[in-house]
This record gives sequence, C-alpha cells and structure tokens, in this order.
Amino acid sequence: MSEYTLYCFAQSGNAYRAALMLNLIGADWKPVWVDFFGKAEQRSSEYRANVNEMGEVPVLEHGTRRLSQSGVILTYLAERSSKFRPASEDERLEALRWIIFDNQKVNGFLGPYRFLRTLARPPGDPAVLAFLKGRILSTRPFILGERPTIADLSLVAYLYYPAAEFGFDIAAEHKHIAAWLDRIKTLPGWKHPYDLMPGHPLPNR
Amino acid sequence: MSEYTLYCFAQSGNAYRAALMLNLIGADWKPVWVDFFGKAEQRSSEYRANVNEMGEVPVLEHGTRRLSQSGVILTYLAERSSKFRPASEDERLEALRWIIFDNQKVNGFLGPYRFLRTLARPPGDPAVLAFLKGRILSTRPFILGERPTIADLSLVAYLYYPAAEFGFDIAAEHKHIAAWLDRIKTLPGWKHPYDLMPGHPLPNR
Repeated sequence: MSEYTLYCFAQSGNAYRAALMLNLIGADWKPVWVDFFGKAEQRSSEYRANVNEMGEVPVLEHGTRRLSQSGVILTYLAERSSKFRPASEDERLEALRWIIFDNQKVNGFLGPYRFLRTLARPPGDPAVLAFLKGRILSTRPFILGERPTIADLSLVAYLYYPAAEFGFDIAAEHKHIAAWLDRIKTLPGWKHPYDLMPGHPLPNR
Repeated sequence: MSEYTLYCFAQSGNAYRAALMLNLIGADWKPVWVDFFGKAEQRSSEYRANVNEMGEVPVLEHGTRRLSQSGVILTYLAERSSKFRPASEDERLEALRWIIFDNQKVNGFLGPYRFLRTLARPPGDPAVLAFLKGRILSTRPFILGERPTIADLSLVAYLYYPAAEFGFDIAAEHKHIAAWLDRIKTLPGWKHPYDLMPGHPLPNR
C-alpha cells in the first residue's frame, strides 16, 4: 500500500499541483482516478461520504488524514518532507501570498476559463500576467528567488496544459514564464500532467 | 504614530478582513484611504513605488514589513497576537483550507460579482452556500468549532455589506449564516465595514 493516495483526474490543474509535488519529493504515492467528466463521481453520495463531503478534487489521503485544497496539500507536504519549503517567516508569508493570489487570480481564473471557454472572458487581470512577465521572473529564476518552493508548484497548475485548450499560449507570449516553466521541468520527478495523472485522453463523448 | 497602518477603502471586503482583525485584537492601527473609485490611486506610480508594486489593496504596514493578500495579513496578525490563531496543526491546515477556499470560491466570487453586477452571473457555486448553510454552521458556532479563528474573519469579508449591493440577501436566506454573522458581531471590537474603514459613502459620481 502506498503512503499517500491522491484522488485526481488528469485534466485538473488543481490536482496537478499536488501530484507534481508528490512526484518531486519522491513520495510513495498512487493516484485514484475520479470520473469527473463522465459520472461526476465527485458529487456522488459515496464520494462525499468516503472521500470529501464537499465533493472536491484533489484530496490527499495520508494515514487517517484527508486534505483538500491544493494549497493546503502543498503546505502539508512541504512541512513533512522539508522540500520546497519556505525557509523563513518572510518566505513563508510570501509563499502564502502567492498561493492565495494564484488560487484567486491566476489559476483560479484559468481553470474555470478553460472549462467554460464558451464564456470567452479574458484570462484574468492583465496586471497578473504583466507582473509575472515583467517583474518577478525577469530578475530571478523562481518565484521566491533562487530556489523552487511550493509557490512555484502552485502557480504552474494549468500552465503545462496544451495551449489549444485555452485558445491562447501564455508561454509563447511571455518568455520569462516559458523559461521558468522550463526550469521547473528540469526538476527530478517532473512530469506533464497528462503523464502524471490518470484520465487522459478523455473517451469520445 | 500607530503600530500598524492599513491601506484600504470602505467598499473593499478584502480590506475589511484585515481591518476587522486589527480591531478585534485591539491593535494600535490607523487606516489610510486609497482612492480606488475616483483616482484609481492604487494603480498610480506613486502607490506602486511606495506601497505595493502590484497595485493591491489592502496592504498592511508594520515596521519595515508591507504585507498584501488578506489571508496573509490574517495569518501574520494571528501569529503576532495569538488571537484567532488555529491551535494545532490540524486546525492550522483547516484554517488555511478555508482561507483559500474563501478567496477562490466564496468572497473571491462575491467581490467581483458585486463590483460587476451588470454581468449578472450567479453568486458562486451553489454548493458553497449550501455547504455553509447545511453542514458546518448548523452544527457548530464557528467555522473550526467552538472558537472564532482567522477562518471566520476571512469568510465574513463581504457578508456584512448591504444586501442591496448584491441584489440578494445571503443572511436572510440562510439562518445559520445569519446566526454566525450575529455571533461574530458580538466580539469586542466588531464594527461594520462602513464604520471601520474610510470612504463611505461614495461622493456622487
């Protein structure tokens, strides 16, 4: 039996954050596929009773703990493993800032946008991407500086998925983001979300 | 000179989280009004240079620290004051879960919705409010249990603003939410956002 179990599906950038972290820290983990698109399994009474009462994906199972929200899972795994962990109080607050910012404005926007493309809203606050492009990643290799932390792992959530799924190509338009995504790709254990989690490709529907 | 300075304006539920926390812990603080609606001061080069380069509101100034993201400010103040602080690792992870969930799905949705009412989108995932109504607050007085924590202070962000500003009345429709809002109101130092932060009413525009 694996130490960690992750309830996930390949199309979920939120789940990808957790799956990527597990892989990068070399954890003994296994994915359990949640049939989100077909049976909407996450909303079933069985899933709500046994995995997560709010019907959330991802959920990390570790012993008797069941954690949801990828930002919480990242924090928990960083503390457990001491990998990708912010090194000081300032760094910890800064990592938290990025994780919340990400969930609210970056991937919190990209995820639904990708899912609901027909609404055709613009991809978040232009200031968000302008900032990533012009300030942070032009002067340092990772979000908090020289070392990758959970802030990086949170922010990449949807950024490795095919540009065709969004209708625009963030990496092609922002060279600093592209270089940063490449740097994270070189970390031992990195995998593309479709290689790391089950459920791709979707069956014909 | 006050110990804490909060850059804020009365209409911001995000700023309200921080202002309310400062008041509830009895901090020595003063608000500095950001002219968001008139001059869009938060986007000025002066604000970006001196307060927050991303043009965010709220910003908490404490000594040489400048913190943005209300979830970060809440965490920082809880650790500094030991008030509203989660008491164990489990509680800490649970509070973080709620703060991210809130920024992503609850107030992260209500804020823009209120601001952009003409888009007339529904107020977030119905599961969010159903959960708050039916599960958590029906069985315990506060989000994490018997004591109020930063998770509560995050979640109330927009919920005391007038129902007319939203076009629907959450408290009237959900008695457990109404009772919870009333409980938080009884905490020493509680104030309505329009009484706690400068900038209300807006001048005629």
